[in-house]
Amino acid sequence: MSSGGRGGTEAIAAVATGATSVSDVAAACLGKVHELDPSIGAFRAIDEEKVRSRARELDDRITGPLHGLVVGVKDVIDTADLPTAYGSPLFEDHRPSADAAIVAALRRAGALVLGKTESTEFAMFEPTRTRNPVDRRRTPGGSSSGSAAAVAAGMVPVALGTQTAGSVIRPAAYCGVYGFKPARGWASTEGIWLLSDQLDTVGLFARCVADLLLLYRALRLAAAGSQTGVPADLAPRTRARPAVLVLPAREWGSWEPEVGDALDFAASRLSDSGWEIRETRMPRSWRQLPEQHAVVMAVEVAKNLHAALGDRVGKISESAQAIVERGDRCSAREYLAALAARDEARTALGPLSVAAGLVLAPSALGVAPEGLAFTGDPVMCRPWTLLGLPAANIPAYRRDDGLPVGVQLVGLAGDDLSYLADLASAEAVLTPKED
Amino acid sequence: MSSGGRGGTEAIAAVATGATSVSDVAAACLGKVHELDPSIGAFRAIDEEKVRSRARELDDRITGPLHGLVVGVKDVIDTADLPTAYGSPLFEDHRPSADAAIVAALRRAGALVLGKTESTEFAMFEPTRTRNPVDRRRTPGGSSSGSAAAVAAGMVPVALGTQTAGSVIRPAAYCGVYGFKPARGWASTEGIWLLSDQLDTVGLFARCVADLLLLYRALRLAAAGSQTGVPADLAPRTRARPAVLVLPAREWGSWEPEVGDALDFAASRLSDSGWEIRETRMPRSWRQLPEQHAVVMAVEVAKNLHAALGDRVGKISESAQAIVERGDRCSAREYLAALAARDEARTALGPLSVAAGLVLAPSALGVAPEGLAFTGDPVMCRPWTLLGLPAANIPAYRRDDGLPVGVQLVGLAGDDLSYLADLASAEAVLTPKED
Repeated sequence: MSSGGRGGTEAIAAVATGATSVSDVAAACLGKVHELDPSIGAFRAIDEEKVRSRARELDDRITGPLHGLVVGVKDVIDTADLPTAYGSPLFEDHRPSADAAIVAALRRAGALVLGKTESTEFAMFEPTRTRNPVDRRRTPGGSSSGSAAAVAAGMVPVALGTQTAGSVIRPAAYCGVYGFKPARGWASTEGIWLLSDQLDTVGLFARCVADLLLLYRALRLAAAGSQTGVPADLAPRTRARPAVLVLPAREWGSWEPEVGDALDFAASRLSDSGWEIRETRMPRSWRQLPEQHAVVMAVEVAKNLHAALGDRVGKISESAQAIVERGDRCSAREYLAALAARDEARTALGPLSVAAGLVLAPSALGVAPEGLAFTGDPVMCRPWTLLGLPAANIPAYRRDDGLPVGVQLVGLAGDDLSYLADLASAEAVLTPKED
Repeated sequence: MSSGGRGGTEAIAAVATGATSVSDVAAACLGKVHELDPSIGAFRAIDEEKVRSRARELDDRITGPLHGLVVGVKDVIDTADLPTAYGSPLFEDHRPSADAAIVAALRRAGALVLGKTESTEFAMFEPTRTRNPVDRRRTPGGSSSGSAAAVAAGMVPVALGTQTAGSVIRPAAYCGVYGFKPARGWASTEGIWLLSDQLDTVGLFARCVADLLLLYRALRLAAAGSQTGVPADLAPRTRARPAVLVLPAREWGSWEPEVGDALDFAASRLSDSGWEIRETRMPRSWRQLPEQHAVVMAVEVAKNLHAALGDRVGKISESAQAIVERGDRCSAREYLAALAARDEARTALGPLSVAAGLVLAPSALGVAPEGLAFTGDPVMCRPWTLLGLPAANIPAYRRDDGLPVGVQLVGLAGDDLSYLADLASAEAVLTPKED
């Protein structure tokens, strides 16, 4: 990324070889924040004193494989040392008593948390103040608005987000970075604002796949309580050039012409590099997945917001209330039918994955919408979140005016590590390093 | 039981030592059916020719640990060689193409299926023609009406039933036999009419705990694909005299005086034998469990009957339609709240199980109701089914007029085998063999 600072893998290597220190890496990130964040608004809370003192501590003692990595953490994820407002004025001064499990894993792995990044209200659709670093008159997308913008602007190399509908893939597409939503259940969501029991997934932002892989593996290892050996199922994998099914997915939403251009660009580049590329028809059982996702999400959002907020549900935004009301109106039969439809849709994965390991599909319906009022439509992400498959935005293409148009690569087998190996191969073709 | 034929364990031992043959055991059961079933109506389908030829085959070759055991199978459980009507006229001539998983396990273990026993319509509340062997003017209870009656009348030593609300414990209580509903998920329900995804559980009827234990272990072993070695977790267990909490559970329903007499009788007998017996108050989170169970059941019954029957839902009984309609009206929020309440209720199990391993509670609200129109109220079973705990009816007590009044023993730790060891200890005190 032209706008970007140093990559995470690069920073870790530089600290490890003594070329720089954690304090210097952290100071460079804070410098970028001072320079850019006044006009972007990616960070909601940074305690600079604490960042500096924590960096000095890390310079005294290596504590894990992410030593030298500076990370932004979405505001819906609990941190004991920084306020956590879940994107809501109702929690403006809230300070959790403990770190979320994923933050504890980050710290155990030796990473340095720079600050909390802006989230839409409760990770839904009421926007934040954050602006898109590529074009400040446009939304960065949501709900992980600040994490996407902070990584795109080079303030941090990587950041944590969450995805319940399209909250990682969509802002990554609008801001022109990699956004990775691993397979459902890969990491604990303990200490993260609970939206949907069946959908909430921790996601990662980075400017290159090497950083995603590094962060993903270190978090899995830290969660497993180990930092030295690499468990067999976390070892790096190599694969032959994989086959890709192109799924235009017009059944899910009518996208702008630039989305077709981005798909064509990616497909033809991959094909030129010897990948097997085939367009595929959508399985019949997948057509209603966006609607079925919306049913599951609304019901569970309603249940969880009532439980968390009680009477204060009346004080949340109208857009959030509309989802709660939809969930309240939903019958148990409709809810169970949506879950059954998801299970039915999953049966199509078996035969499809015989044909190919990957699907190439749109990340969003077009470039980032103008203005900050609307964070964009997550419809192209709802199905993959409901199916629980690993998916990432690849910032492969830009419109003539320079606005990013992402494409989404989805792993049909549901295995994150094989998927990341494929994603790295795709990166080498689609977003090669310039230097 | 005075009415009973030979016990299952006894029959297996007699065949094994050459004192009798499988053919003779089967003939004795058929003789009891000829003698008693015209006035009871426990069996819906028996193919006598097939029973005799299968018995001859078994006499030629020992195929498993249940060699010599004759079993009745409830009509909601698929059998490839006998019609399976699920208690409904809509399936009068239905003949499944394959055995249910539990029937396949039975046969692999060497048991002989005598026939199909009557079930209420789809294992709900529309009664069968079956009469209570103890008093033919009364219901045997439901929904496993035929299995309970067949075992009580001595036509078979053991039989399979299913419980979604109180379909094993209640008929066992009314007919004066042991009925055991193991912990949720102990056996596959594949090939069994699907009522409720979260509740349906295969249950067992017998006249003594030794037969329950024998059948339970053999089915677990056969399901695990092994018939020789005993996996460590299926080895018999011995326990000290366990502590019992007496839970009168008046909050769940107002029972007749004989129920209090039965509880008092069982508690004082156990206490006289040195068991630690304490009355306990009901945890607050348990009070609404019967209602929460009814919500979960209605929603899932509605979903599954719509899926299985389509338009023919209009042709089922009014009592079944009422449940479907209740499920249809139920909101997703109400359904999820019931499931959350169940999870909350489960948290009370930890502290309670420190105090005692067992709960003694009513099996039903009184003796078997008069007439055949009403199979009795399952309210005393709903909570334990929702919690998924192992529970059995102990035929410990009879009213002055000879009608059985069961008590229910529930295992708080949720472990079937430790529970069965405790149940055997309780049997030795409460229903000692007369021989």
